Amino acid sequence: MFVNSMPRYEILSADALAVLDRGWQRIVTEVGVQFDHPEAIALFRSAGQKVEDADVVKLDPEFVMEQVAKAPREFDVQARNPERSVHIGGDQMSFGAVYGCPFVREGNERREATMSDFRRLTMLSQHFDELDSAGGVICEPNDVPLDSRHLDMTLALQTLTDKIYMGNVVSGPNAADSIRMSEIVFGGREQIEKTPVMLALINCNSPLRWDSRMLDAQFEYNRAAQPTVLTPFLLMGAMSPVSVPAALAQQMAEALAAVALAQLIRPGCPVIFGSFLSNIDMQSGSPQFGTPESAVGLLSTAQIARHLGLPFRTGGGLTSSQTADAQAGYEALMTLLPTFLAGTNWVMHAAGWLEGGLVSCYEKFVIDIELLRMLRKTFTPLEFDEESLAFGAHVEVGHGGHFLGAAHTMERFRDCFYRPLLSSSSNFERWTRLGAKDAAARATEIYTKVLDEFEPPPMDESIRAELDDYVNRRRRELGD
Amino acid sequence: MFVNSMPRYEILSADALAVLDRGWQRIVTEVGVQFDHPEAIALFRSAGQKVEDADVVKLDPEFVMEQVAKAPREFDVQARNPERSVHIGGDQMSFGAVYGCPFVREGNERREATMSDFRRLTMLSQHFDELDSAGGVICEPNDVPLDSRHLDMTLALQTLTDKIYMGNVVSGPNAADSIRMSEIVFGGREQIEKTPVMLALINCNSPLRWDSRMLDAQFEYNRAAQPTVLTPFLLMGAMSPVSVPAALAQQMAEALAAVALAQLIRPGCPVIFGSFLSNIDMQSGSPQFGTPESAVGLLSTAQIARHLGLPFRTGGGLTSSQTADAQAGYEALMTLLPTFLAGTNWVMHAAGWLEGGLVSCYEKFVIDIELLRMLRKTFTPLEFDEESLAFGAHVEVGHGGHFLGAAHTMERFRDCFYRPLLSSSSNFERWTRLGAKDAAARATEIYTKVLDEFEPPPMDESIRAELDDYVNRRRRELGD
Repeated sequence: MFVNSMPRYEILSADALAVLDRGWQRIVTEVGVQFDHPEAIALFRSAGQKVEDADVVKLDPEFVMEQVAKAPREFDVQARNPERSVHIGGDQMSFGAVYGCPFVREGNERREATMSDFRRLTMLSQHFDELDSAGGVICEPNDVPLDSRHLDMTLALQTLTDKIYMGNVVSGPNAADSIRMSEIVFGGREQIEKTPVMLALINCNSPLRWDSRMLDAQFEYNRAAQPTVLTPFLLMGAMSPVSVPAALAQQMAEALAAVALAQLIRPGCPVIFGSFLSNIDMQSGSPQFGTPESAVGLLSTAQIARHLGLPFRTGGGLTSSQTADAQAGYEALMTLLPTFLAGTNWVMHAAGWLEGGLVSCYEKFVIDIELLRMLRKTFTPLEFDEESLAFGAHVEVGHGGHFLGAAHTMERFRDCFYRPLLSSSSNFERWTRLGAKDAAARATEIYTKVLDEFEPPPMDESIRAELDDYVNRRRRELGD
Repeated sequence: MFVNSMPRYEILSADALAVLDRGWQRIVTEVGVQFDHPEAIALFRSAGQKVEDADVVKLDPEFVMEQVAKAPREFDVQARNPERSVHIGGDQMSFGAVYGCPFVREGNERREATMSDFRRLTMLSQHFDELDSAGGVICEPNDVPLDSRHLDMTLALQTLTDKIYMGNVVSGPNAADSIRMSEIVFGGREQIEKTPVMLALINCNSPLRWDSRMLDAQFEYNRAAQPTVLTPFLLMGAMSPVSVPAALAQQMAEALAAVALAQLIRPGCPVIFGSFLSNIDMQSGSPQFGTPESAVGLLSTAQIARHLGLPFRTGGGLTSSQTADAQAGYEALMTLLPTFLAGTNWVMHAAGWLEGGLVSCYEKFVIDIELLRMLRKTFTPLEFDEESLAFGAHVEVGHGGHFLGAAHTMERFRDCFYRPLLSSSSNFERWTRLGAKDAAARATEIYTKVLDEFEPPPMDESIRAELDDYVNRRRRELGD
């Protein structure tokens, strides 16, 4: 967790916010939001909202904002190691690794992701303090059975890390398994309801439609008071109009409708205003990441979420690049630097994202960790006081001299500046002598060493046994 | 030139600015600034400033600020193609290419720069509209004689581009040559004094010392009313204390002393508050670029310059990386994105910088152009109005549909989003079919095509002949 005490960079005028408010209100009133879920429809209906065509809810904006007001502005999420617990909201920023990739890339090899990759990437997430979580689906382990895969993933997240994690959302029963396994680790339902222990990503089938399986999962998590990250999935040009203001208004309509549902399911349950907003290449239809439009959308989303009084998710180390090259570096920072300017509370895909999210890349993981380290330092305010002016050093060094040996320098040289994890400033001769390795090659060395030396965090043996029992029993029940 | 109408990102409190004001005032009063130039000393002395040890001026801060107030807040610089003229100051941002590199990198080859490289890199600068200038020493052409090299460079800048350029600053006579050649192009001394035609980079031999050769050049340019970019050269840990506030106060002391001198030489002559501020690696002594400290220094410098009422220079596509890799991409953006947040008026090293400024890199040049294009788009404010909400598209598409064929999309798909120059979002199969080229390899294709197709901008034949005559005569006089 990082406390971002620097100013926010806000780009929307009060007029622009008013336009967006009129925009989402008109959408929910006149077009409505589709909920493919009879129980959700029943809840909206009994709360007095108009339902048309069986599953389209025409929402009253005032009702929506009444529901939104029930959601906490900030909340805690406990990790099994209390030092890793986080606070979501306010100036706090928390970071999870990449989520949902069917492939991995390691060096020049791109392959289907496996459970071994899942574990190795989870171990990297545990190692680096810049991450508060491995996320939930750090890659899609295609070598283990689909029906019970969520058990393997959740067990890995719970045992290889002592950080917070994300619950499975593929179905209601999967969500129930995530919740039950969390009860085992944290000492029962009451404990996890008191202070939540995981986040769950609920994506909209944008435009304006929430699907049944995701909603089943949302019901499970909201009932258990676990925070849901309610996220419109907007690639402008495909899932929203080709206009940033239109996408922002749609994003408000979709997210706020789901927040209202969450508050109907369990008033006061924690939610996160989610954003996943980029655009497609209008020539090829490919998604593009790290674009100007996504940066502007990100900064705007932050301001909108503060305007609505909700903690929010956006950002990450996003890129379209196919390899850990210059494009991967600049596109990732083109998303991560605005993420810090925005003060995003919950950042998914903060490490390892490659190729538009199809690939979890080991090298890119290390690159992103370097970016997070640099940005944490950049967004840590400096002290400006008499001492910081180091006037004595000027008296000591005088005109045209150098400060290398000055007393002020000698007292501070160890930690006065950011020290890179990955970046090299070696001179050309030394760099050549060391093998002329580019950043990707150096990243390989870094993650290989981390994995070689990895020790899993300790866990109570009886808890571990109970988890294993649960997973084995459920696996049998699921026929895997 | 780019007009940055987005908000500035300001990180210094009023208290911090007051601390910095006390800081520079104490330095100029108690330590003083050394000017290795009898004429400069005489000017300060006759203006009532105290001189010690023959060349150290103890400045009265009030006197300094009186001189600073004589400098214009904004000014024009004319290019020989009036469409390429720029305005320095206010919301305007202008960009020049990398400056001063003894080496070039092209693909995997790193070699001593030649005059052919100088011309080729100048041609790239002419081609890309994101650059307002090739700068001045886009690389150091080591295959032509030292004494007359400035003539070759200036001629190349004047003939291969029709943009503004930078004058030579190696010595007073070199500066005089740059001025005389500009008189030829622009129709005489009176014309260039009326509206300046070039910038000149005057670096401080930090800490607190301005050297004779640079000052000789400054005198020439100030007398001719050409703007000087008065730049403290601060690698914290070597040329300044290991503290950002201390470096900022020193930067103010050094730059403001030189601004005062400029106004004594020619009251009202245009100046730019210059900043070149990064840090060294305290383990190896190597300079580091694209660091958190440099980003914070950059943002602070912008605010300081506005506080002082001076146009300013900072930023660029800086990196320590030895090759056009992920590090080069993220470090360049780690400097360029803050450059836009700061609204920098004059940006040097905006394209082509590699390896701490030792290398002009062709591939990196194209990478930086892509970054400038992305940032120009990002920092162009959006319209938020009813039309931008595209409500009709929602009515047309409904729930769970897609916007690919919507009327709103069809009307706008050609230019609704940023279209990359270099970045690829091709799917993996297509990218592989195209040769699995990373960003650096694609950059090679881009600059090769630009150079193959390059046509120099037209120039009046009689001007061209007069320039050639001047260069040939001066070359003979210099014995080359």
